[in-house]
Amino acid sequence: MEQLTIYTSSKEYPVYIGKGIRKRWKKLVEEMAGSYSKYFLIADKTVADLYLKDIQASMPDIPYYLVESGEESKSIGQFYDCQTAVLEAGLDRDACILALGGGVIGDLAGFVAATFMRGIDYIQLPTTLLAHDSSVGGKTAINHPLGKNLIGAFHQPLAVIYDIETLRSLTGNEWRSGFSEVIKHALIWNPDFYGWLKQNIKDLGNITDEQLAYLIKEGIRVKAQVVGQDEKESGLRAILNFGHTLGHAIEAELGYGRITHGEAVAIGMVFALRVSEVYYGIDYNMDEITKWFQQFGLPVAIPETLDEARLVERMKKDKKSSGGKINMILLKEIGKAEKVQIDESVLSPLLMAEFERSRSDDTRDKGSNNG
Amino acid sequence: MEQLTIYTSSKEYPVYIGKGIRKRWKKLVEEMAGSYSKYFLIADKTVADLYLKDIQASMPDIPYYLVESGEESKSIGQFYDCQTAVLEAGLDRDACILALGGGVIGDLAGFVAATFMRGIDYIQLPTTLLAHDSSVGGKTAINHPLGKNLIGAFHQPLAVIYDIETLRSLTGNEWRSGFSEVIKHALIWNPDFYGWLKQNIKDLGNITDEQLAYLIKEGIRVKAQVVGQDEKESGLRAILNFGHTLGHAIEAELGYGRITHGEAVAIGMVFALRVSEVYYGIDYNMDEITKWFQQFGLPVAIPETLDEARLVERMKKDKKSSGGKINMILLKEIGKAEKVQIDESVLSPLLMAEFERSRSDDTRDKGSNNG
Repeated sequence: MEQLTIYTSSKEYPVYIGKGIRKRWKKLVEEMAGSYSKYFLIADKTVADLYLKDIQASMPDIPYYLVESGEESKSIGQFYDCQTAVLEAGLDRDACILALGGGVIGDLAGFVAATFMRGIDYIQLPTTLLAHDSSVGGKTAINHPLGKNLIGAFHQPLAVIYDIETLRSLTGNEWRSGFSEVIKHALIWNPDFYGWLKQNIKDLGNITDEQLAYLIKEGIRVKAQVVGQDEKESGLRAILNFGHTLGHAIEAELGYGRITHGEAVAIGMVFALRVSEVYYGIDYNMDEITKWFQQFGLPVAIPETLDEARLVERMKKDKKSSGGKINMILLKEIGKAEKVQIDESVLSPLLMAEFERSRSDDTRDKGSNNG
Repeated sequence: MEQLTIYTSSKEYPVYIGKGIRKRWKKLVEEMAGSYSKYFLIADKTVADLYLKDIQASMPDIPYYLVESGEESKSIGQFYDCQTAVLEAGLDRDACILALGGGVIGDLAGFVAATFMRGIDYIQLPTTLLAHDSSVGGKTAINHPLGKNLIGAFHQPLAVIYDIETLRSLTGNEWRSGFSEVIKHALIWNPDFYGWLKQNIKDLGNITDEQLAYLIKEGIRVKAQVVGQDEKESGLRAILNFGHTLGHAIEAELGYGRITHGEAVAIGMVFALRVSEVYYGIDYNMDEITKWFQQFGLPVAIPETLDEARLVERMKKDKKSSGGKINMILLKEIGKAEKVQIDESVLSPLLMAEFERSRSDDTRDKGSNNG
C-alpha cells in the first residue's frame, strides 16, 4: 500500500493507494482517527452490486443508502433523501459517512457530510480512475438545471482509501474519462510525468498494477500540490480547470450523461491548447497530441450538433467566470498553466475555427467513435 | 453608530449598530470590502413591506427574493428556490447576498450564501431583537422534519448591519422572544450585565434607544466572545445552548411556530436553572427569576399538553447530544456555564417534577397568557 499526505490550509489527510484495501477500511480509519459513534455508507448502486459485501467485511451491519449511477444523482432531491436516510439511521455529530463510488458519489456524499449538522467527517472510497481527481481537494457539490456543481461546499475528507482493484471493473469509457484528467494533471504541472505517460501508456486495456498505482499517485500529487497552495480556488487552483471551461459547456449543451466528463475535458484541452498556441505564439505539435488522444478513443473535436454561440454563452455562465469575460486556463509551456481572461470577441472566432477544422479533417470520426 | 468586531478563527468582521443605517448599507459594505459584481437581497415578506424601499435607497434595482415569515421557510424547498432565484439573477462568485429579516432569513440566506458556488459573501441586516443572537457566529441552516437546523454550514457573514429603528415595529411576542436570548447571554457569561438587565429592564415596551443599543451590543459581545474562542462548537460554544435542549424539544413537540423560539428557551432556562440547583446544590432564588420572566410575559412552565417521555426522546435526538446521553448546559453560578452529560434516568424525574410544579402553582396561567 502506498500513502500520500494532502496538506490544506484547514487540515491534512492521507490518501491510501493499494490492492484490496477497501475490505479493511474500518481498521485504516480507526488507526488514524479513533472510533466514531456511527458509520453510514452512501454508494453507487452499480458499484454496490460489486463491492458492498467488501465494505461489509469490515462492518456487517453498516447502514447504507444506494444512489443510481450517473450525474443525475447529483440533484437536490437525492441530496435531501440522503440527509433523511442519514438522520433515520440515527447519526449524530460524531458519526462518519463513507462514499463508495466515483466522482458523483464523492460529490454528493461529501456535500451531505459537509452540511449534515453543519459538517461531519467523511471518507472517500473512489472506484473510478476519474475520482483520483475529484477525491482530492475537498470540493463537494450537486448540480442545478442551470449548471453543474452550482450548489456545494468545500469540505475535506478525513481520508481517501483508493483500492486499485476496483478499477478493473471499469468500462472503456470510464478508463478514458479518468485518463483524460490524468493527462490534464501532467500537462498543467509536471512535464516529466507527461513524458512518462506519453512513453508508457498507449493502451488503457494493458496498464499494469504498478503503472496504475504510479499514475494515480502522480495525478493525485499534482492535484494535492495545487490544492495545498490554494484551497479555496482564489488563484492557483484555477489551473485545474484546464480544458474545463469548454468541457463543462459541451456537457451542459449535450445534456449531462451524453458524453463522459473526461471526454468533454479532452475536447476542452485540445481547444485550450490551440488557443494557447495563438495566445503565446507557440507550436504544441497538435497533430501528435490529438493522435495520442485518439489512440485511447478520446474525442478531440467539438460535436457538430452543438452551436458555437450557445457554447460561448455557457462558457460565460461558467462559475469560474466573472464580470462577463471568459476565464480560460492556457499553457505557457508543458507544465506551466495560467488563467487568462479572454473577451468573447476574441474567443468566438477561435471556436468557429475549431468547428471548421473538425469538418475539414477526419478527427471527428475517430473522436466520436468511442464507447 | 456603534461598532463591534467579531473575531473568529477563519476571519473577523464588523457589527454596526445604529439608527437608520439600513438605508446606507451599500456605502458601509463598500467602504470595508470594495465593490461586488452583484448584490442580491433575500428578505422576509413582512419585513420587506416595511423596509424594502429603504434597502432600495442604496440600490434601486437590487434583485430580490421574498420569503414568507416563519420557521416553515427554513425548508429544503425554499433553499432551492432561493438558489434558483440567485442563479437567474446572474450572480457569480464575486457577488454578495443581503439577508434582511430575523433569524429565519439569516439562517436561510446564510446557508444559500454558504453553498452558492461553494460559498459567497453575505451581509446580515437583522430586523429582530432575537437576531442579535443568530446574526453572530456564522451558524446557518435549514430544518428537516426530524429536527431543527439539521442541514447547514458554518459561514461567517461579511458584516452585520443592525438598525435598531427596525426593531420598533416588532410585536410583543418578538420582543419577548429576543429578550429571552439577551437574558441567556447575561446568565451564562456576564453577571454585571445580568444585574443591569434585572435593574433596568422591567417593561419591554419602554426601552429607550440607548438601552436598546446597549443591550444588543452587550448581548452580541457575549456571543462574540464565546464564538471567538470556539468557532466550531467543539467545546465552549456549547454553553450558548443554555435553555436550548429542552427549548428545542418543546418547539418540535408543539410544532414549529406554535411557540416562539425565545419563549421555548425561557422555559428551557427555567428548567436548566432548576437542574443546576439540584446538580450543584445551590439556590438561584427561582421565585424571583420566574417572576421577572413573567413581568415580560415570558412563559416559565412546560405546556401541559406535552408528554414527558416524548420530550426526553427529543432531547436525546438534539444535535448537541451524542452517544445516547443528554447534554445540558448548567450554571455553576450566574455568569459561569458548563456542559454536563446527564443520563435519561436522572433527567426524567426532574422533568416530571417540573410538570408537577406547573400543575400545583399558578405559573402556568401567567406563563401561557402571552401573545
